[in-house]
Amino acid sequence: ELRFDPKEHQHLRYNPLRDTWVLVSAHRMKRPWSGQVEKEEEDQVPQHDPNNPLCPGNTRANGEVNPDYNNTFVFENDFPALQPNAPDPGYNQHPLFQSKAARGVCKVMCFHPWSDVTLPLMTLPDIIKVIDKWAELMVDLGSTYPWVQIFENKGAMMGCSNPHPHCQVWASNFLPNEATLSDRCQREYLKTHGEPLLLQYAKMEAERQERVVVQNADWLAVVPYWATWPFQTLLLPRRHVQRLTNLTAQEREGLASIMKRLLTKYDNLFQISFPYSMGWHGAPTGPYLKEDQFHWQLHAHYYPPLLRSAGVRKFMVGYEMLAQEQRDLTPEQQVSHQGETRRGLVTDGVY
Amino acid sequence: ELRFDPKEHQHLRYNPLRDTWVLVSAHRMKRPWSGQVEKEEEDQVPQHDPNNPLCPGNTRANGEVNPDYNNTFVFENDFPALQPNAPDPGYNQHPLFQSKAARGVCKVMCFHPWSDVTLPLMTLPDIIKVIDKWAELMVDLGSTYPWVQIFENKGAMMGCSNPHPHCQVWASNFLPNEATLSDRCQREYLKTHGEPLLLQYAKMEAERQERVVVQNADWLAVVPYWATWPFQTLLLPRRHVQRLTNLTAQEREGLASIMKRLLTKYDNLFQISFPYSMGWHGAPTGPYLKEDQFHWQLHAHYYPPLLRSAGVRKFMVGYEMLAQEQRDLTPEQQVSHQGETRRGLVTDGVY
Ligand SMILES: O=P(O)(O)O[C@H]1O[C@H](CO)[C@@H](O)[C@H](O)[C@H]1O
Ligand SMILES: O=P(O)(O)O[C@H]1O[C@H](CO)[C@@H](O)[C@H](O)[C@H]1O
Repeated sequence: ELRFDPKEHQHLRYNPLRDTWVLVSAHRMKRPWSGQVEKEEEDQVPQHDPNNPLCPGNTRANGEVNPDYNNTFVFENDFPALQPNAPDPGYNQHPLFQSKAARGVCKVMCFHPWSDVTLPLMTLPDIIKVIDKWAELMVDLGSTYPWVQIFENKGAMMGCSNPHPHCQVWASNFLPNEATLSDRCQREYLKTHGEPLLLQYAKMEAERQERVVVQNADWLAVVPYWATWPFQTLLLPRRHVQRLTNLTAQEREGLASIMKRLLTKYDNLFQISFPYSMGWHGAPTGPYLKEDQFHWQLHAHYYPPLLRSAGVRKFMVGYEMLAQEQRDLTPEQQVSHQGETRRGLVTDGVY
Repeated sequence: ELRFDPKEHQHLRYNPLRDTWVLVSAHRMKRPWSGQVEKEEEDQVPQHDPNNPLCPGNTRANGEVNPDYNNTFVFENDFPALQPNAPDPGYNQHPLFQSKAARGVCKVMCFHPWSDVTLPLMTLPDIIKVIDKWAELMVDLGSTYPWVQIFENKGAMMGCSNPHPHCQVWASNFLPNEATLSDRCQREYLKTHGEPLLLQYAKMEAERQERVVVQNADWLAVVPYWATWPFQTLLLPRRHVQRLTNLTAQEREGLASIMKRLLTKYDNLFQISFPYSMGWHGAPTGPYLKEDQFHWQLHAHYYPPLLRSAGVRKFMVGYEMLAQEQRDLTPEQQVSHQGETRRGLVTDGVY
């Protein structure tokens, strides 16, 4: 009988946050790649571009002029996927043709007045201002909307159409699919095991130290045991914290620092400004603020598209779309890659 | 009060096959696009490339020589994600660190000896040979494996690394996530509504004729009411058919014809060889062959990545990954786009 070796033998791993499985076939990294190679991003972004609608002092599509902002700047998305007053499609529908009203707001948040920086290149005080503004938006929008999704699409490869450092905040009158799923999984875990899922998970990863990418007194960034994207990470507070709004000043400092370190490691990996989509998941808001949400633990997901190099991405296509996600290296192999290099693009690193 | 107009007002639509919702924000098509533009595919693929491991007579990575085949040709994937004899990771695991054995086989199936054709450019008799071979593989692999996923990644944009017309067949000893989900949804629908979900759905779409792209006596290709990809389609038999293996000779002919017409329309849409991932879902096999699978209806999903033109794709990123799928035109708008042009790349069209 062969002895099981995760680096050689495909296996399934369970994602307890989504109640799904991922196929891990590490030996697939050996296959030659003759498919699509991505263009490298233009690296000469000017600090201020008079035609970029995200820069201070410029005029946007709707004629509004941006203030001469110094740190963060938030405005309403000029082409929102969610608007506050969309009419209701009406009820009494056939079960196969069901629709529902969707209402909300979409905001854009610039991280910094300069177009040529990214989060890992910003100073800690400036990153803290981003975190404070996130929390502020969660308070404002979360007072009425049940779900406020903060997310950053970074890099053209991730559909980002503007190089200026920014994220988006979409608030909705419904719990999106992923929120519903994560809520159910965390709720059931607490019921069955008596402890919030991600609180227990963070403790165990902190003990095992097998998949930790960076850590500090209050935070942990790990490659989840069930990661699907090649360089996916999960950012977790050590304390039980349900929402961004509940973070203490010290935890916000620690978060700024761990984000800077994590993103610096990403940039170092393939020596480029690393593309990804990231976003925060915390307990639902609006009407849910009055309900018990003990099962929730705040966390951020980082989903980067690259697999082998700055030019070769992982395609989540045929089998992944129709059957099941599949990855080509183990999460443990990924950690050792991410740990490897400390040289990099960032010069004011703090670790 | 505003009157609801699906082309102007965002709303949610329910996907009964996956028990999820999609956010439809048709007005988002109005936003300007300054993001990534895809390279067009090289259009000069030679009919025979002596270095292409998929061509007749050539030698593959493992030293095997391909026969001088005339229509389809099937071989084992030289870099399989699933192998038949992977050892078991072992049991007695913590609920947050669960793994499971994954066993299976991965095959590659060439559609035609020439590299410069695609399914819509092939003759009907040659497409029927592809369908017959699919059914044959379902019999062979399905005799033991519970799930046999037939899928085609077409185009470099969909991670396809070889221009030779081919698909893949991955058989596994487990039901993948998507199969499990679809099985549950179809089973529950039958229980509640007394008729197989997709059989009822096909009848209703055939009556309404609002989302039908192409149809014939035995088949229907519709844009599902809940489509998430901009030009997604669902291919359905009109009769209750559980598996590819159950198709009559006449239904196979009709399938060849409707595939040719559907794919020709795709090519016509942006005047390119249209990229997509497609795959078949039918009742599970292996041990499930002995169980009642009346709730299942055979179908194929087509998931194409393009949104606006041959160069501008839909990015399923931040909000879509972290919260919920979002689309930028209604399924009904999509049908009228796909219906528009009949001019095209295909010269031997049969309709
Ligand atoms: O097996 P291929 O065609 O080399 O690979 C392609 O299809 C696979 C199955 O969908 C994916 O896992 C790969 O990411 C993709 O590049
Ligand atoms: O709003 P943006 O940045 O223009 O658009 C980007 O992010 C959105 C939210 O994830 C996606 O729906 C778009 O496909 C993507 O291009």
